[in-house]
Amino acid sequence: MKILFLNGPNLNLLGQRQPDIYGKTTLAEIEERVRSRAKELGAAVDFRQSNHEGELVTWIQQAKGQFDAIVLNPAGYTYTSVAMRDAISAVELPAIEIHLSNVHAREEFRKNTIIAAVCCGQISGFGAESYILGLHAALSIKLK
Amino acid sequence: MKILFLNGPNLNLLGQRQPDIYGKTTLAEIEERVRSRAKELGAAVDFRQSNHEGELVTWIQQAKGQFDAIVLNPAGYTYTSVAMRDAISAVELPAIEIHLSNVHAREEFRKNTIIAAVCCGQISGFGAESYILGLHAALSIKLK
Amino acid sequence: MKILFLNGPNLNLLGQRQPDIYGKTTLAEIEERVRSRAKELGAAVDFRQSNHEGELVTWIQQAKGQFDAIVLNPAGYTYTSVAMRDAISAVELPAIEIHLSNVHAREEFRKNTIIAAVCCGQISGFGAESYILGLHAALSIKLK
Amino acid sequence: MKILFLNGPNLNLLGQRQPDIYGKTTLAEIEERVRSRAKELGAAVDFRQSNHEGELVTWIQQAKGQFDAIVLNPAGYTYTSVAMRDAISAVELPAIEIHLSNVHAREEFRKNTIIAAVCCGQISGFGAESYILGLHAALSIKLK
Amino acid sequence: MKILFLNGPNLNLLGQRQPDIYGKTTLAEIEERVRSRAKELGAAVDFRQSNHEGELVTWIQQAKGQFDAIVLNPAGYTYTSVAMRDAISAVELPAIEIHLSNVHAREEFRKNTIIAAVCCGQISGFGAESYILGLHAALSIKLK
Amino acid sequence: MKILFLNGPNLNLLGQRQPDIYGKTTLAEIEERVRSRAKELGAAVDFRQSNHEGELVTWIQQAKGQFDAIVLNPAGYTYTSVAMRDAISAVELPAIEIHLSNVHAREEFRKNTIIAAVCCGQISGFGAESYILGLHAALSIKLK
Amino acid sequence: MKILFLNGPNLNLLGQRQPDIYGKTTLAEIEERVRSRAKELGAAVDFRQSNHEGELVTWIQQAKGQFDAIVLNPAGYTYTSVAMRDAISAVELPAIEIHLSNVHAREEFRKNTIIAAVCCGQISGFGAESYILGLHAALSIKLK
Amino acid sequence: MKILFLNGPNLNLLGQRQPDIYGKTTLAEIEERVRSRAKELGAAVDFRQSNHEGELVTWIQQAKGQFDAIVLNPAGYTYTSVAMRDAISAVELPAIEIHLSNVHAREEFRKNTIIAAVCCGQISGFGAESYILGLHAALSIKLK
Amino acid sequence: MKILFLNGPNLNLLGQRQPDIYGKTTLAEIEERVRSRAKELGAAVDFRQSNHEGELVTWIQQAKGQFDAIVLNPAGYTYTSVAMRDAISAVELPAIEIHLSNVHAREEFRKNTIIAAVCCGQISGFGAESYILGLHAALSIKLK
Amino acid sequence: MKILFLNGPNLNLLGQRQPDIYGKTTLAEIEERVRSRAKELGAAVDFRQSNHEGELVTWIQQAKGQFDAIVLNPAGYTYTSVAMRDAISAVELPAIEIHLSNVHAREEFRKNTIIAAVCCGQISGFGAESYILGLHAALSIKLK
Amino acid sequence: MKILFLNGPNLNLLGQRQPDIYGKTTLAEIEERVRSRAKELGAAVDFRQSNHEGELVTWIQQAKGQFDAIVLNPAGYTYTSVAMRDAISAVELPAIEIHLSNVHAREEFRKNTIIAAVCCGQISGFGAESYILGLHAALSIKLK
Amino acid sequence: MKILFLNGPNLNLLGQRQPDIYGKTTLAEIEERVRSRAKELGAAVDFRQSNHEGELVTWIQQAKGQFDAIVLNPAGYTYTSVAMRDAISAVELPAIEIHLSNVHAREEFRKNTIIAAVCCGQISGFGAESYILGLHAALSIKLK
Repeated sequence: MKILFLNGPNLNLLGQRQPDIYGKTTLAEIEERVRSRAKELGAAVDFRQSNHEGELVTWIQQAKGQFDAIVLNPAGYTYTSVAMRDAISAVELPAIEIHLSNVHAREEFRKNTIIAAVCCGQISGFGAESYILGLHAALSIKLK
Repeated sequence: MKILFLNGPNLNLLGQRQPDIYGKTTLAEIEERVRSRAKELGAAVDFRQSNHEGELVTWIQQAKGQFDAIVLNPAGYTYTSVAMRDAISAVELPAIEIHLSNVHAREEFRKNTIIAAVCCGQISGFGAESYILGLHAALSIKLK
Repeated sequence: MKILFLNGPNLNLLGQRQPDIYGKTTLAEIEERVRSRAKELGAAVDFRQSNHEGELVTWIQQAKGQFDAIVLNPAGYTYTSVAMRDAISAVELPAIEIHLSNVHAREEFRKNTIIAAVCCGQISGFGAESYILGLHAALSIKLK
Repeated sequence: MKILFLNGPNLNLLGQRQPDIYGKTTLAEIEERVRSRAKELGAAVDFRQSNHEGELVTWIQQAKGQFDAIVLNPAGYTYTSVAMRDAISAVELPAIEIHLSNVHAREEFRKNTIIAAVCCGQISGFGAESYILGLHAALSIKLK
Repeated sequence: MKILFLNGPNLNLLGQRQPDIYGKTTLAEIEERVRSRAKELGAAVDFRQSNHEGELVTWIQQAKGQFDAIVLNPAGYTYTSVAMRDAISAVELPAIEIHLSNVHAREEFRKNTIIAAVCCGQISGFGAESYILGLHAALSIKLK
Repeated sequence: MKILFLNGPNLNLLGQRQPDIYGKTTLAEIEERVRSRAKELGAAVDFRQSNHEGELVTWIQQAKGQFDAIVLNPAGYTYTSVAMRDAISAVELPAIEIHLSNVHAREEFRKNTIIAAVCCGQISGFGAESYILGLHAALSIKLK
Repeated sequence: MKILFLNGPNLNLLGQRQPDIYGKTTLAEIEERVRSRAKELGAAVDFRQSNHEGELVTWIQQAKGQFDAIVLNPAGYTYTSVAMRDAISAVELPAIEIHLSNVHAREEFRKNTIIAAVCCGQISGFGAESYILGLHAALSIKLK
Repeated sequence: MKILFLNGPNLNLLGQRQPDIYGKTTLAEIEERVRSRAKELGAAVDFRQSNHEGELVTWIQQAKGQFDAIVLNPAGYTYTSVAMRDAISAVELPAIEIHLSNVHAREEFRKNTIIAAVCCGQISGFGAESYILGLHAALSIKLK
Repeated sequence: MKILFLNGPNLNLLGQRQPDIYGKTTLAEIEERVRSRAKELGAAVDFRQSNHEGELVTWIQQAKGQFDAIVLNPAGYTYTSVAMRDAISAVELPAIEIHLSNVHAREEFRKNTIIAAVCCGQISGFGAESYILGLHAALSIKLK
Repeated sequence: MKILFLNGPNLNLLGQRQPDIYGKTTLAEIEERVRSRAKELGAAVDFRQSNHEGELVTWIQQAKGQFDAIVLNPAGYTYTSVAMRDAISAVELPAIEIHLSNVHAREEFRKNTIIAAVCCGQISGFGAESYILGLHAALSIKLK
Repeated sequence: MKILFLNGPNLNLLGQRQPDIYGKTTLAEIEERVRSRAKELGAAVDFRQSNHEGELVTWIQQAKGQFDAIVLNPAGYTYTSVAMRDAISAVELPAIEIHLSNVHAREEFRKNTIIAAVCCGQISGFGAESYILGLHAALSIKLK
Repeated sequence: MKILFLNGPNLNLLGQRQPDIYGKTTLAEIEERVRSRAKELGAAVDFRQSNHEGELVTWIQQAKGQFDAIVLNPAGYTYTSVAMRDAISAVELPAIEIHLSNVHAREEFRKNTIIAAVCCGQISGFGAESYILGLHAALSIKLK
């Protein structure tokens, strides 16, 4: 069982960026936690970050045949990227949209996710724990 | 550690109701799975369902001092109940909104949750597993 | 053939309430007319009213296996009750939405019924006769 | 007692056109059913169809003094014809808007009828039975 | 002169709930203040609270013939209850909508009251004093 | 100087139709008044009415080379006819939109004229006098 | 018969201001034309201009008892002045809204007049001739 | 304790203007009632009216240091005056918006007050009594 | 292989009408070009124009069994004709919507085609060439 | 080179008014800074403030022939004054809209400036420095 | 004559991706068909694909002087890329927007193309044939 | 003092691209002017351009610790890039949004900047001078 974790723009700044909204944990620390939990659960993970929409699209495309599911924090592209939405539809892998912050409690425009409609589901608001929950969700989908 | 699980209208029909959308598991089976996992994790749960908005409001109010967190599937009241939103704000307990189906992939009106903005976060789309993820999320918030 | 007639909030006031909009017939008189016509047509009816959304939801749920169709005047809940909509979807019985007044000729918000989309059809504007038409419609659906 | 039945564009295709939405009965068969039921009830009917908005407007105008009520399936003109709305207001005859399909369960734009606001009421979703219900409704209005 | 004071959902929590928005006075203390002022002014009051929309609807209905006016804090139902609006129209008693907080200075959705349009007027923003002002307003209407 | 007066749907009913909105003068009487005033002013008029959008479009097209200006009461087609708008743009004759009633004081949808934007101007609200004003306006444009 | 002509902000610049939109005639020349035509028709006119909304409101108020009708070019206040709308409602004199340019063919916001709904009618698009038409309209209303 | 009462455009016409909406009491009579009640309550009032937005802005500005609170009936400027809103924010005195009529039961645009969001609260619908309630509210705020 | 070309209102004016938008070619010349190209490609075409929505509806209906595809320039009816949309759905022939001008670069309302959703596709912006492209597209669909 | 600086409502309160939004500098100090910088740059300035929309309109009108450019802080009138917009269009002088605060980061309604569309450009968010930047911008436009 | 064919995100997956919407032909096969047809018609084509908005922008920019026209399938960027729109405006080459699927028959958001307004025209819905039609359209524009 | 100037998509075409909107100066010439002015003012500047949203995001991120402020012309990404908005929030450096053209006077969609709300302010409409003003603004912020 292999899970691809994709991280969108600015998530490389985690830990430094607005800690009141996003928490103090760095992306490396989150990756470490995810890896360790995945190992316990018998799964392998790949963990990537990019500020480029095109690169994220390409990574989603390449997941086909390489991974069993995608856990995706699209960050700022959540609200604008039809290209990522179309990529997820195209690869036909189960995908899970996750967010560190509770997007329903922030600016109005953060309520309109373009991507969630083509995912299995969405998890938002639990900080670094959103990644762990996303991992569990991905495994539970595959085990069905 | 005590967690209150609240279930809104029609969730008592689970297992019979539109299984293509909501799955075949009954609410009693979900309760059983939640109880058993909670026990493993050292937590106690209370699990209730009502078709009455007013009763759900009252249960949220009474949670104060009795429970450490609320995991809430507001079902049809998600999109219309300011009363439940206000109750959650009032009790000042961490609350987590969960949904069996992926509300972002259904009718337009199911995208506008009134309640999530006053919760810690939202989990939607994973069937019965949404409850287990909600339990994990609740525990992780309290352990912080 | 058994038909469940459900009446939403304030319909217990019929005959006293704004007779220029709703007519002078009381709900008991309407029930009488419906019963009598149903008898002629070889059908049985059950006739209930509640001001509680939750009670109406429960009655819709319980109709399954007990009734062949539901004729429903949701009154004020027409425009706000996702819970009743979901209940109708769940029981998978033919349902017919009826209104005494012509909702298309009143306040703007009365044009947006949440419930009709999951019913077989809608009848509005014929006063007490809307109930008789609803009865006929219910029987014609079942006879198909 | 004379009732004018008017049928808007494309209703001449009934029976051939999208039978999953509109049923298999032809307009001639519906006319036959309406005539026969009207006869039983002691009423006369005239039954017409046109694809021309202008012709429908003219027929509505001419109804004055010739008919006691109009039962109108405006079909595609339901959502766009202010001219037909104005004609109905002008003749001051009771009019009833009917639809074969449940317009509340189809495309978004089919929820906005321009015409119903100047009718006595609306009946939609019962296939050919909508015409029979319309006939009953028309008679009940005149008998008041 | 008898005035019915109705309190909607969560008002039973007053004093504990978000004191920065709703103040520290409890509902019992407000009731006490209202009673005492009413007595000075030669009026009797009945003071009730419910979390159930249906119960509030029923109480409004029952006011007819028992009370001379209604002072109503619909709380969370202000923005969603067509049923309460219809009940007020039906009883044809003067009604006054009151709010503790200034609803015009809060979330966007709190600006759209469904109920005020069928009341005599609205008072919002003066904390417990809104009740006293509502009492005065009710008396002044009746004395006209 | 020749002016074409075009009248849209239902204007043939003038005098009978809703006299509180449209006045008691018939279209023939208006025509008579327009002709007589036009004669005084040294102009010829042609005066036509149709319930058919297509016929009105054709008449507008044929005006080119035959008339110096068009005075147009589009009635119900004011709000829906892109075809008439395009016809006016195409013939490149000065056109004036007139209305008997004050369209700004009626239903919301009567505020959105599709046609006025391609006319020289609009006159609304003066009953039969709107036609005389339209005649004057047409002559003044041509004399510039 | 006395008619008050009121001119809103920037109309004092007529003749200099954007002649492609507003023409080359000055306001003094328009006044001269209006006076001379009024004299022929046996009417007296008063002709005023102000850039101040408050002054225009006051002049409308003072018209009561002094004038038989108001012809009003509200210019920039057309789209924003509830105060002028309320003043016209208050004095209960027939009022006519006029515009030099065709407001239906300009910026989107110029289509939403706040004032026309409380006037008898509106005339727009005929340059200085709009004033003469307004005069005729005012006289025709008073002669009814 | 000194309270400034400000009255916006057209309130000088009270008593004459649309008595079905605004009542028969003149502004002078209201002032008299307010003064007399204020005296009983040990407060002084200043009472002014202007049709000029700019003058109202200036009066609000000058209230600082001269008055303890402002009771403001902005009339037609309620829906359009950002300038008055900004003035109230700037002086940092408690302000109360009042209306004679129930603005929630009138034209759609009267539901959008720009000013109330920077006031303590709003009172609308009680005719002249709205001023007395405003006075009470102002005193209660200052006494807190 | 037979293709029906239908032309909506005002297309009979082509060549004379606003040549900067629609070009200088007449409809007869376009027909000639279409016929000649069709002949080369072994197809027959019928080419019609009408200003009447009802006639266009009828022609679409009659195409069934007579033609293999429809190429349709609905012109002004593109944005308003649900009747033509329903006719296309009813005949279940492949239909192609074409436009001479680029409708995406014109008035806002020309972006909302009602008809394209029930066609195979849309071609707009290439002047007379849009017809040739429509012919090619029709043939390619039939050859699949 | 002469530049007119116009200041809208409430700017006379600068320094006292909400210093967290508008800063502590008074308008007189800003005038002093602008004058001194203008002198260095060889330009003359006139600096005025008014709470009256009408006075601001008049000052804009009078600028023609007296000034080479206008730097305008319309304050509260930014979002509501079509009259000021029309005045700027009329005088055909380069105008620059400036704001002390960043209007894009405040209430939603402050994003919709009516005036900027007829100016050369807009500068917002730099406190008193916005005036200096406006001066530079005005000079750079004139030097082109 | 040289034509640049640009393909946006996910088009590299053609043939594998959702064949019910996009068909079974691969992008390489489409390229082959376009090349072969272009050769017959005496034109050269360059054919590129990128998932990166920035790269597509750069390719559009570089087309100037190298190509005579651009045929562009912007895919997911159609609805979001102002950058690509601006690039097309900047290079001032004729551009044609094409789509494999009929975008007017899919999700609501796919109806709002940002890019088509700066192209010559748009072709959508013909699968791989859209490319051939785009080629023909491009050649016809250049030959004018 | 070091200032980072970032230029978004298509700005590399400046001087060639639509000179009526964007002027004739090239980006290199603007850079030269900015550098020279910065030198006079004792500041250093870095000046970059990219068509890639992801690269612009990365550059904004890297500014932290390297620069004192960012002056940003986001061009086409102004209206669509939540990613750039989030990057600016994350680095917590003062940022200034600049535009060559007056975005308030162009297409409707150019009025909705996503980015300005997280900047200190916005400057638009002064051509190349917008950069110099942006430089001044940046220095004035840092000197506070």
